[in-house]
Amino acid sequence: MDASNGLGDFEETCDDDIKSFLDSSPPLKNAAEIKRKTEEFMRTNSNSENPKRIVLVTSGGTTVPLEQRCVRYIDNFSSGHRGATSAEYFLRAGYAVVFLYREGTYQPFCTSLPNNPLLECLQVTKESNIAACPQYEKTIKEAIINSHVVTSCGTLLKLPFTTIFEYLQNLKLIASSISSIGSRALFYLAAAVSDFYVPWESMAVHKIQSSSGPLDMRLVQVPKMLLMLRRDWAPKAFCISFKLETDKNILLKKAGTALEKYNMDMVVANELLTRKEEVIVVTKGGNVVVQRDRTRADADVEEPLIKLILDRHSASVSSVS
Amino acid sequence: MDASNGLGDFEETCDDDIKSFLDSSPPLKNAAEIKRKTEEFMRTNSNSENPKRIVLVTSGGTTVPLEQRCVRYIDNFSSGHRGATSAEYFLRAGYAVVFLYREGTYQPFCTSLPNNPLLECLQVTKESNIAACPQYEKTIKEAIINSHVVTSCGTLLKLPFTTIFEYLQNLKLIASSISSIGSRALFYLAAAVSDFYVPWESMAVHKIQSSSGPLDMRLVQVPKMLLMLRRDWAPKAFCISFKLETDKNILLKKAGTALEKYNMDMVVANELLTRKEEVIVVTKGGNVVVQRDRTRADADVEEPLIKLILDRHSASVSSVS
Repeated sequence: MDASNGLGDFEETCDDDIKSFLDSSPPLKNAAEIKRKTEEFMRTNSNSENPKRIVLVTSGGTTVPLEQRCVRYIDNFSSGHRGATSAEYFLRAGYAVVFLYREGTYQPFCTSLPNNPLLECLQVTKESNIAACPQYEKTIKEAIINSHVVTSCGTLLKLPFTTIFEYLQNLKLIASSISSIGSRALFYLAAAVSDFYVPWESMAVHKIQSSSGPLDMRLVQVPKMLLMLRRDWAPKAFCISFKLETDKNILLKKAGTALEKYNMDMVVANELLTRKEEVIVVTKGGNVVVQRDRTRADADVEEPLIKLILDRHSASVSSVS
Repeated sequence: MDASNGLGDFEETCDDDIKSFLDSSPPLKNAAEIKRKTEEFMRTNSNSENPKRIVLVTSGGTTVPLEQRCVRYIDNFSSGHRGATSAEYFLRAGYAVVFLYREGTYQPFCTSLPNNPLLECLQVTKESNIAACPQYEKTIKEAIINSHVVTSCGTLLKLPFTTIFEYLQNLKLIASSISSIGSRALFYLAAAVSDFYVPWESMAVHKIQSSSGPLDMRLVQVPKMLLMLRRDWAPKAFCISFKLETDKNILLKKAGTALEKYNMDMVVANELLTRKEEVIVVTKGGNVVVQRDRTRADADVEEPLIKLILDRHSASVSSVS
């Protein structure tokens, strides 16, 4: 451990917190299968004839259960739209993508469809065939074709999560595997990760009863895994984290702190109300304001954002090799 | 107010709590549209030539926002599977159905499809047509056809909610409209409604910060609307509420208390782990154990449950008229 940067005590406390968090989490049910899928994905995409760059895109919010036999939980608002759209751009740019997403949130190539596309976009014809309603035909077909192509040629691996416990265990597992390709690995951590949780061992086993007055809850901070990701799990990877705030006055300060504290390569700062129009990319070399192209109605902010990231990641790969 | 039943003080406190809850809730954004749709639905389904029975099925869980510009919220686990399946049986039995559902949960006629039917069940053929994968073809076509039929002939009205504030305001609005048909109205309240909430005026405006240690929260009880539904909003309707517990030792006691306290016609008692196999219907005339037909693999518990309810509702309508 390097204590000379003044972060020694902070790092040590974090290590203990993270170890205790992971040790006390309910174990991932399908860890062996996730490991197998990730390793197969790595073999397909990082062999010597075809050494792709690989990005882990995390997307959607994590939940914090309030009861072990869970009826209630705290959720973090996130549709997963940014993560899903970004994954598309990475795929188009030739990256192989591990998409770690919250169950039920947006999927790559499906971000412009209504909530319930089956009922809202499809019909059964007189000849008893399934057909898209005319206004959705192009979008629906592209969604199906693009999704099938990337899945069948092995450049997109989708892995779902729900709770904070599942998310962080998945992150560790995937990071340890992806780290084998060094600087060609990219982490794009767009998921909305819970800041507070109820430790599993102090959690009520049964549904909390409502008959006995108000409910007082004490939530403790989720340990900051970014530090461990950066330092231990994937030290050579290019790491991008996200900071979402509703109060723009504290946004850049908090993004800057995260950049320093966790030694990120970039922090993407979003404000809740304007996040689809503009983000500010905070880096050690200065801030870059990224805006969507307002001359095109369907342009999104992810297009210029991913373009910037591709450039910076390329520069970083070149400087290492 | 009838104080002779010993509930006088309880009812008075409830009235104050409910009034204060509704007064302080953020107002429904589309109240006028919901009112218009509900009234049109009532005109279609309760005119003198065609006086249908009408059921309000509520389905899925409500959320409790923790911040006014909401990033975090407490959610109640509910896939909406029971509500959606039950709505199908009511429609098949000739009822007109108002389906008040949590955005993103199961829809009637779609309960046996995978989470993401578009990507998992459909393909684009060489001739560039959309087709179902063979194993899903029958289910997909039935889902689309049945949904379109009930929507186009006006016997199914679907209205979404997300927060507890939206749910309860919708419930009041719809109940006041449906109550006009007296005993032909049925309330089937399967939604998982939050027991605790943070009052809007005491809620943090911005995202709660995680840098300052543990988070202490005080949640207060959501006032019990069932009392007001029964007494004021729709006094002649047949009312069924649900009680879900994870601890079977307290389940029947709590269901019995709800039956008495809110003067329900039935309380359906579910235990979390066995709720798809068996429920116990608690009524003033005694309890009925309802189980799915285990000789058929695809049989569900909703089929015999709705059958029982249809019988009891018919008896109740006859006894009144």
